[in-house]
Amino acid sequence: MGAENGQKSLLERIEMPEIPMEVAQEFALLEQRFIRAETERLRRSTVENRPLWEKRSEIISKVQDDFWVRVLSHAPAEIDEYIQHADAAVLGSALKDLTVERFEVDDKGNGEPRSLRFTFVFRTGEENPFFENEKLVKEFYWRKKITKTSKGKRRTWEGLVSEPVRINWKEGMDLTKGLLDAACDLAEAEKKKGGDRKKLPEFEKLAEKMEELEAAAMEDNEEDEEDFPTPAGTSFFGFFGYRGNVVSAEESKEANKEDDERFEKALKGEKFDDEEDDDDEEDDEEDSFDEIEIFPDGEDLAIALAEDLWPNAHKYYGQSFEIGDDYSEIDEDELEDEEDEGEDEEDNSRPRKKARV
Amino acid sequence: MGAENGQKSLLERIEMPEIPMEVAQEFALLEQRFIRAETERLRRSTVENRPLWEKRSEIISKVQDDFWVRVLSHAPAEIDEYIQHADAAVLGSALKDLTVERFEVDDKGNGEPRSLRFTFVFRTGEENPFFENEKLVKEFYWRKKITKTSKGKRRTWEGLVSEPVRINWKEGMDLTKGLLDAACDLAEAEKKKGGDRKKLPEFEKLAEKMEELEAAAMEDNEEDEEDFPTPAGTSFFGFFGYRGNVVSAEESKEANKEDDERFEKALKGEKFDDEEDDDDEEDDEEDSFDEIEIFPDGEDLAIALAEDLWPNAHKYYGQSFEIGDDYSEIDEDELEDEEDEGEDEEDNSRPRKKARV
Repeated sequence: MGAENGQKSLLERIEMPEIPMEVAQEFALLEQRFIRAETERLRRSTVENRPLWEKRSEIISKVQDDFWVRVLSHAPAEIDEYIQHADAAVLGSALKDLTVERFEVDDKGNGEPRSLRFTFVFRTGEENPFFENEKLVKEFYWRKKITKTSKGKRRTWEGLVSEPVRINWKEGMDLTKGLLDAACDLAEAEKKKGGDRKKLPEFEKLAEKMEELEAAAMEDNEEDEEDFPTPAGTSFFGFFGYRGNVVSAEESKEANKEDDERFEKALKGEKFDDEEDDDDEEDDEEDSFDEIEIFPDGEDLAIALAEDLWPNAHKYYGQSFEIGDDYSEIDEDELEDEEDEGEDEEDNSRPRKKARV
Repeated sequence: MGAENGQKSLLERIEMPEIPMEVAQEFALLEQRFIRAETERLRRSTVENRPLWEKRSEIISKVQDDFWVRVLSHAPAEIDEYIQHADAAVLGSALKDLTVERFEVDDKGNGEPRSLRFTFVFRTGEENPFFENEKLVKEFYWRKKITKTSKGKRRTWEGLVSEPVRINWKEGMDLTKGLLDAACDLAEAEKKKGGDRKKLPEFEKLAEKMEELEAAAMEDNEEDEEDFPTPAGTSFFGFFGYRGNVVSAEESKEANKEDDERFEKALKGEKFDDEEDDDDEEDDEEDSFDEIEIFPDGEDLAIALAEDLWPNAHKYYGQSFEIGDDYSEIDEDELEDEEDEGEDEEDNSRPRKKARV
């Protein structure tokens, strides 16, 4: 966007060098009020929706057990990008059922509604040539952590944390190529031995595995770029290895208590000047939990599964029956159109209407 | 996604030719239950959020009146695509305030929460060289319409309808090039004269105007493709001309009553077979209101403004102060990177993490 007719453009109007501190604090407090109201609503809707999810499971049980396979094959891009060829083969032949629960909310509507539990149910025995597990249950806890930065400022982290879940792969079938096992080994060793994670032999092993696979993926990428969407070559099953930040339930409870008290004081007009600015953040080093994360986008994927795939599953299922919606067809079209994508895509994806002048 | 290792892929598992009718009906009823529950929650949250929006307006009034200009300059793509160069110049120099209200919900939480009112406040006199209006108020009503198709099936339409809002452009300043005036003239003539819209001279005039501008836009597009994102050349101010379907309040009330009764009966297990299938839809002709629509994406834009720009405005405002977030800079980068977009964009937009193997 730029100026025309000698008028000021949107950005030329902007002259103020920075947001006034007082206003920034008021917006921050207001945003807290919005988040708290939204979280309370999520708590209520979780309880209200439960009978509807139960009803849906009942309907799903009436159709062939390809329901979730059809849903996943029509998943939105932010989920589909994590399903590689080999993952699709496993899910397609072995997945029987999937459930998503906001399990920390009780029937009275108390508890943290942002925590999530994913239960994947699979065929067993000869019907699943990939692994032994009948169920894979992955739980994510919404936790808060308050730390002090090197400058003595208060830094708040909030998000989903989880523990790696081991998959008992059959011989030669491990899609994560040993990465998930290495992540589970480290987590178990940490629990048993405690102390500095970096001094454990399992830490070294995981780091080596990650480097080795990263190098292999980069090589593959050069050979056949088209076949490996981001994140390059990572199996969907790496999701079960996601950990996130290290925050205990106890620590999170304390942090929430501290934040609740601050919030109440702020509502009464008390000012704080020990909160970290955006500028400070860049000076601090990377969070240490990143370096043992085998599936860095685990939180994003968990939220996409819970907020999009799960509530809209019956719609994606319906879409899988629509005429002309066939993958082999789409693949051919994609190959043909790839060169002049930009313009054409726009034209095809929307119904043609007359008045676009 | 395809098969590997001789296993069945996601889609090869799918053998059933179509969704069983009984299951489809059960899912449709369940979807109705979800929509009704969600609409009820929107009703409640509308009332709950009102004091927070008021508080926000109070904070906004403390900063220079570039708040909404900053917000619009950081609007998400699905809004930004409708703001052309000339629109940005007008908004940048003349917009003072913007309010979005779910105005049909009263203080007790009764009323349709999907109806929307947008109030744009502008500078006047010499400070606005474009038009005379101090306020432009655009109201959208959520309405329902039930019709019978040529095959005697029941078709339900639901969505936002509105009336064109005239802008008193100053001499030579009409960004819609007469299109909005023509749309307003037709709507007024319809009200005064009634009868078949297509027989009115104003209908002919609007159709001519639309064709003329479409031809001009196509010519411009050939000359300078980069400058005209979709919809080609349409001014943002065409939004004030959006109409949507023709459904009176009375007609919508009747349709809602009929649907509520059907819903109650369906809950008790009654089956219906007069509902239109997806297959039927294609046989019917295009909705007649499309041909007088000067801003076909009006409903999409209204929803994006209400569900994204409005609730997140204070966040977009904050983002407009972030270091390095400068439009002239971005423009240069975009030009340079355009050729190898795909890969690079992915790399730049996410923080680099170690474990992406």
